[in-house]
Amino acid sequence: MEEPQVHPDTGREARTGQPEVIYGPGKTAEQILAVARDLLEAGVRPILVSRVTADQVAAFTESFPDARYHETANLLVLAPAPTRRGTVAVVAAGTSDLPVAEEAAATAAAFGLSVERVTDVGVAGVHRVLQRVPTLERMDAVIVVAGMEGALPSVVAGLVYAPVIAVPTSVGYGATFEGLAALLGMLSSCVPGVVVVNIDNGLGAAMAAHRMLSR
Amino acid sequence: MEEPQVHPDTGREARTGQPEVIYGPGKTAEQILAVARDLLEAGVRPILVSRVTADQVAAFTESFPDARYHETANLLVLAPAPTRRGTVAVVAAGTSDLPVAEEAAATAAAFGLSVERVTDVGVAGVHRVLQRVPTLERMDAVIVVAGMEGALPSVVAGLVYAPVIAVPTSVGYGATFEGLAALLGMLSSCVPGVVVVNIDNGLGAAMAAHRMLSR
Amino acid sequence: MEEPQVHPDTGREARTGQPEVIYGPGKTAEQILAVARDLLEAGVRPILVSRVTADQVAAFTESFPDARYHETANLLVLAPAPTRRGTVAVVAAGTSDLPVAEEAAATAAAFGLSVERVTDVGVAGVHRVLQRVPTLERMDAVIVVAGMEGALPSVVAGLVYAPVIAVPTSVGYGATFEGLAALLGMLSSCVPGVVVVNIDNGLGAAMAAHRMLSR
Amino acid sequence: MEEPQVHPDTGREARTGQPEVIYGPGKTAEQILAVARDLLEAGVRPILVSRVTADQVAAFTESFPDARYHETANLLVLAPAPTRRGTVAVVAAGTSDLPVAEEAAATAAAFGLSVERVTDVGVAGVHRVLQRVPTLERMDAVIVVAGMEGALPSVVAGLVYAPVIAVPTSVGYGATFEGLAALLGMLSSCVPGVVVVNIDNGLGAAMAAHRMLSR
Amino acid sequence: MEEPQVHPDTGREARTGQPEVIYGPGKTAEQILAVARDLLEAGVRPILVSRVTADQVAAFTESFPDARYHETANLLVLAPAPTRRGTVAVVAAGTSDLPVAEEAAATAAAFGLSVERVTDVGVAGVHRVLQRVPTLERMDAVIVVAGMEGALPSVVAGLVYAPVIAVPTSVGYGATFEGLAALLGMLSSCVPGVVVVNIDNGLGAAMAAHRMLSR
Amino acid sequence: MEEPQVHPDTGREARTGQPEVIYGPGKTAEQILAVARDLLEAGVRPILVSRVTADQVAAFTESFPDARYHETANLLVLAPAPTRRGTVAVVAAGTSDLPVAEEAAATAAAFGLSVERVTDVGVAGVHRVLQRVPTLERMDAVIVVAGMEGALPSVVAGLVYAPVIAVPTSVGYGATFEGLAALLGMLSSCVPGVVVVNIDNGLGAAMAAHRMLSR
Amino acid sequence: MEEPQVHPDTGREARTGQPEVIYGPGKTAEQILAVARDLLEAGVRPILVSRVTADQVAAFTESFPDARYHETANLLVLAPAPTRRGTVAVVAAGTSDLPVAEEAAATAAAFGLSVERVTDVGVAGVHRVLQRVPTLERMDAVIVVAGMEGALPSVVAGLVYAPVIAVPTSVGYGATFEGLAALLGMLSSCVPGVVVVNIDNGLGAAMAAHRMLSR
Amino acid sequence: MEEPQVHPDTGREARTGQPEVIYGPGKTAEQILAVARDLLEAGVRPILVSRVTADQVAAFTESFPDARYHETANLLVLAPAPTRRGTVAVVAAGTSDLPVAEEAAATAAAFGLSVERVTDVGVAGVHRVLQRVPTLERMDAVIVVAGMEGALPSVVAGLVYAPVIAVPTSVGYGATFEGLAALLGMLSSCVPGVVVVNIDNGLGAAMAAHRMLSR
Repeated sequence: MEEPQVHPDTGREARTGQPEVIYGPGKTAEQILAVARDLLEAGVRPILVSRVTADQVAAFTESFPDARYHETANLLVLAPAPTRRGTVAVVAAGTSDLPVAEEAAATAAAFGLSVERVTDVGVAGVHRVLQRVPTLERMDAVIVVAGMEGALPSVVAGLVYAPVIAVPTSVGYGATFEGLAALLGMLSSCVPGVVVVNIDNGLGAAMAAHRMLSR
Repeated sequence: MEEPQVHPDTGREARTGQPEVIYGPGKTAEQILAVARDLLEAGVRPILVSRVTADQVAAFTESFPDARYHETANLLVLAPAPTRRGTVAVVAAGTSDLPVAEEAAATAAAFGLSVERVTDVGVAGVHRVLQRVPTLERMDAVIVVAGMEGALPSVVAGLVYAPVIAVPTSVGYGATFEGLAALLGMLSSCVPGVVVVNIDNGLGAAMAAHRMLSR
Repeated sequence: MEEPQVHPDTGREARTGQPEVIYGPGKTAEQILAVARDLLEAGVRPILVSRVTADQVAAFTESFPDARYHETANLLVLAPAPTRRGTVAVVAAGTSDLPVAEEAAATAAAFGLSVERVTDVGVAGVHRVLQRVPTLERMDAVIVVAGMEGALPSVVAGLVYAPVIAVPTSVGYGATFEGLAALLGMLSSCVPGVVVVNIDNGLGAAMAAHRMLSR
Repeated sequence: MEEPQVHPDTGREARTGQPEVIYGPGKTAEQILAVARDLLEAGVRPILVSRVTADQVAAFTESFPDARYHETANLLVLAPAPTRRGTVAVVAAGTSDLPVAEEAAATAAAFGLSVERVTDVGVAGVHRVLQRVPTLERMDAVIVVAGMEGALPSVVAGLVYAPVIAVPTSVGYGATFEGLAALLGMLSSCVPGVVVVNIDNGLGAAMAAHRMLSR
Repeated sequence: MEEPQVHPDTGREARTGQPEVIYGPGKTAEQILAVARDLLEAGVRPILVSRVTADQVAAFTESFPDARYHETANLLVLAPAPTRRGTVAVVAAGTSDLPVAEEAAATAAAFGLSVERVTDVGVAGVHRVLQRVPTLERMDAVIVVAGMEGALPSVVAGLVYAPVIAVPTSVGYGATFEGLAALLGMLSSCVPGVVVVNIDNGLGAAMAAHRMLSR
Repeated sequence: MEEPQVHPDTGREARTGQPEVIYGPGKTAEQILAVARDLLEAGVRPILVSRVTADQVAAFTESFPDARYHETANLLVLAPAPTRRGTVAVVAAGTSDLPVAEEAAATAAAFGLSVERVTDVGVAGVHRVLQRVPTLERMDAVIVVAGMEGALPSVVAGLVYAPVIAVPTSVGYGATFEGLAALLGMLSSCVPGVVVVNIDNGLGAAMAAHRMLSR
Repeated sequence: MEEPQVHPDTGREARTGQPEVIYGPGKTAEQILAVARDLLEAGVRPILVSRVTADQVAAFTESFPDARYHETANLLVLAPAPTRRGTVAVVAAGTSDLPVAEEAAATAAAFGLSVERVTDVGVAGVHRVLQRVPTLERMDAVIVVAGMEGALPSVVAGLVYAPVIAVPTSVGYGATFEGLAALLGMLSSCVPGVVVVNIDNGLGAAMAAHRMLSR
Repeated sequence: MEEPQVHPDTGREARTGQPEVIYGPGKTAEQILAVARDLLEAGVRPILVSRVTADQVAAFTESFPDARYHETANLLVLAPAPTRRGTVAVVAAGTSDLPVAEEAAATAAAFGLSVERVTDVGVAGVHRVLQRVPTLERMDAVIVVAGMEGALPSVVAGLVYAPVIAVPTSVGYGATFEGLAALLGMLSSCVPGVVVVNIDNGLGAAMAAHRMLSR
């Protein structure tokens, strides 16, 4: 029987301004390297590999010594894009949300955006986010990362003009149902205009921000 | 075949300080009247009939002319308890949450508690709830009623000492799943110590407050 | 007992560029009129009332003869904003998705944006959306409205640079679970960067687009 | 790229009488130590770290030799509050519910409350809880911890005046769905006034009791 | 095109001691009459038609003047079986559960069993069910009907030797999810040996009891 | 604002052998007529309109007097295809499943297939389906329609060579969750090779059969 | 702080004919031994410990050398009851269902019942179960264990007079959702009178059979 | 106690053209060997063992040296069927879907069908699947394997005449809910006639294709 081959979509960046991202789970290290080589050869940048295992990291950084591994974000970045205009805030409700927030921050930076981090501003101490409004008001887009009840995006969206991209995280237990509580809450936000990405999808939030700032 | 009879728990008030409440749905007007008469005869007070139909209201107010029908709350109250110490805030995130908030308020009042209403303080305009902190700080208990993402209880619980009783409402559509989003969010609150009752259960929230203030 | 009052957040437009929207369900016509008067007095515009009943429409248009009722969108608009720069495509997968698409289109227009409609381009005939790529490439933002499997946003996002806002609709039956299939599908899109709003939330999608185009 | 910092809400105790609790999962030992130091420096007490790993325990007790690790509760306590008035019963339906019950008991004790334990009084032998009514009647608040069908809070609430805080546990298998059966059952209690916290959230139940007894 | 015909399983009673029951919803009155005639002709008894509409009742009682319509149970019974040995208790937690309890009682009677009704013995007043233990101890089987948290079957099963058949009802709102809370609770009962039938399925519970008493 | 237009996919039949089907819900009668005219003009056949309202039927049959309305199936058929080779069995577990079965039968006939109906062969009387095996063995494809536990497709697939297309129906109540029980059961069939369509989707099953018989 | 003690319900056997069963998960080996000693001392028999770990087995069999460990069932049995009248069939649909079936068989035997095993009679080969009807007809009760679509109980219940106790198993993947498909299917059985226990609850099924045969 | 025996359905191939497949999980290596021997002895072919562990593979290949283990598919094949007419495309949306796609491909080959692999044609780059239409048009059946939003089957079914069998995979995270998003999407396809098998069920898809091509 013939062996299945991997065929990345090397033209996606030309069509959409954003390359195909390599999703680590379920792929062998060899498949990841093959896809990365195809993309690199086609001039695509940046090259991102998300949710990687230690083995995948080792194989990748050996083949591509210029690759940077972001440990908190668990993300490999190769050939980052040059710096461009646009600043994105990555707001994290709590310390446990940082891996997802860092995935967003590292992805945004890989696309050339400037990143401003705002951490530990959960709604239990709402004055903390209010103190950061001057910072948030300067942003071109705001990514808000929150687990548990996921209430922070509504609060932020009631305070600033910029587009607010909500990222539910799987932080919590029991009735959070691995991010479902935050996801439903963000989709049900009483502030129309909040947009939502998948649970723990910091990467997607950053790429959404990049689209918004690419016009 | 013998006919089934209704047998209210006339001793519950003596055991717990709170009488059996008559839940309207699925009961005939005759059954409701029979239960109310048994309770009244046993000296139980107050007598509450919740989630009533127009027919049930008509039959009840005809038999008990002293009964008061709270229209927004859709609640019948007979033989309210005498005024007692204790003030409860009933905080409603939005105007659409008022039926549930009024069920809480009318129930608390029927148990002799003083009620302070705080309305339209949703998290989209978080300064509004901050302006009401002086009022909330005076309360013995705070009932917070919110639909959609149900974020308000976390914000309130981060601002006051009093016990916070969260009531999710079925206000919203789509991913609110008839109150599920708010319910899960309140249970997942990042402020430990928030307690939660069933969706749209203003009555239960008021009775919980009454228990807390009965020591 | 005191009566609960309605208190709209008249300052939200100043903070965020977007006013509080009046959500019709669960409000009396009187409450809607009171909120609208408060907003109008505070100089807020546009004023939108969504998901209205025939009674609410009648009361509103009698009090505000300048109000326009969008029948397909089931939306009342008063005091639309002046035309501003920015063109949004509202893409509808099928004819049954039109009420949600029209809610998006009417809202975007009420905020002063230009709207381009693209209809009946479901993924069952993928050449149809390909034929519209030249139109979509000119857009500043693309709202994609789809029920059933909700696959269209992924296809569109793989074809254009603009931000793609996905709106799942409750069109379908059985395993669509009133929009859940489309919602989960859009959140799980293989194109990172697609952002999602609540089921049937055309209004929120348009307001998200407005935020993106307000920088 | 700058590194994200942790910023605990050191003022929460002043606002609410209860400090921020450190939730262990997803945090590095370093982050936990940093937060604990900030809280300690700000004079906050007690300091609680919940759901800890062996590594977190080792690092914490090395840095804070006065810390006490409650093994059954899997909870670290530092700087407990002085004893105050108020006695809380922690009622556990079965032996498998003890970890959650002990989390509640250790938390309540850390806040200075007296704790009375009542164990193995599940509804399968309802006389057992009846025998404990004299004890329960003396309590200022009753925390009821139960898994499987989670029926015990309704029974207890029908027997005593004190506020009843229900804690569903994830004990069971199959149709318990990791605590969902108990959670839904407790929210649906036929005794209005029962309040509920998240699945396995003994800590939150104790903090709710502390709020109730702080007036 | 040929028309589809209805073909009842006239031999089921011979194989299992229980006839095919006619489930009303989705059938025309004509189809119900045709099935009933086929069963009657084959000597099957009793003939039961469940969950009937007013039109179906009218057509059925006109064609079969001996049929009895049980209004609370919403059940038609024709040709009841002769009285046989065996007594079944039908225990209802609350008044709102009576329609389901009566469906169980009427079905059991139609199969020739004696029925003992025990009503209003919900777990909120657990002494009430304890008072009925002498009655329950005389039974050959006990059907326990309960909505909301559905806790009663566990309590009863901890008190008697007889088989306990639990029937969850859709009584309640919000987190009861139309009987789901009671269903999951009954399946998760801490008393192994409780058996469960579908939500609101009083008929099935009675037929299960009949099977148990047919040996 | 420009009005949205309807644009059916008139080329789908040429590409796939099957035309776009008009899904009635959410469309105005005018929209349905417009789509039907476009399809008719393009020479597409058959034209099917599913899940229609009385108003839609009236408008359609007035405009297209040749249209046939299948009442049990609630389906409009215009311009049926000529008879072709291939016979499909439509097997219905119970009488309440007939509307879905008839939708399958009428659709298959509209595509020119011969249809054999097998009704009332539910698994409670498994000998009934065994008696029909000689019929089923002659079929080119077998559509099995069943609600409740949806077990019939597994039994049929264990008896014949032909492809088995399972159609779950929403017949039942409580734990059937409007067809979810049957859907999950059919997907989990212990006979690998059973294929499944959406709940109540008789039309889709017939079109799947048509694809299978078109080679 | 005082240590929580374990207090088994030693009187349950006297009240119900069935002792408290020791559920292994979440208990220490010491707690299990303590409970077993209390039960043994009170003369309770049999003593069952379910879902045990290797450590629990080792500690138990060391303390109680007479205990028997059933490996497939993962069940410890001590002091089995004397043989009594009554034969139960344990019917397993497939080989993967055997652990649950053996839990049922070993439990029934521990209560003194005779057990007849019928294996590999899944509905994919329905003749296999038909061949076993003579055996099944002799039984006093029939326990039917099935995973995946869980269809076997309906087929069996349509063939025999005896009570049928359905046990869904978590065998399968994907849409079986760890036994949910089988559970919902069994609850939705088209044969009224089938009773159901929790997923994988072979023990409960056997104890239900024991109750049925104890009259 | 007698030991339970395994009894495969050796006659299934004669009845249906397809043998019983051995599902690995929950079976001992000995049970698998016993079943395989029984099937082999009865002349059944091919013999497939799915979802195997390393131990099962080792034991199987030792006993049956002719067996072939497909690593990506995690499938054992013994005694493949001779080549027959019919070509099936196995289309995989992404590289992470390959294990499921290979299970389909290896199964189809074991039944004697020719297999054409089409990989990496996800809807994010819809031109890629369009380029493969000439290949797909030659196929007798098309199996489409996709995770995440699972949109590919709708696109393919809108392009070809052949029957389309959709296989959702558990690829993805968060709101994919382990394949639920793709499953619901495929069931809700806007192309009527797409048929669906269980999540990750490549084997079932291939056997469905084999049934379709066996006429």
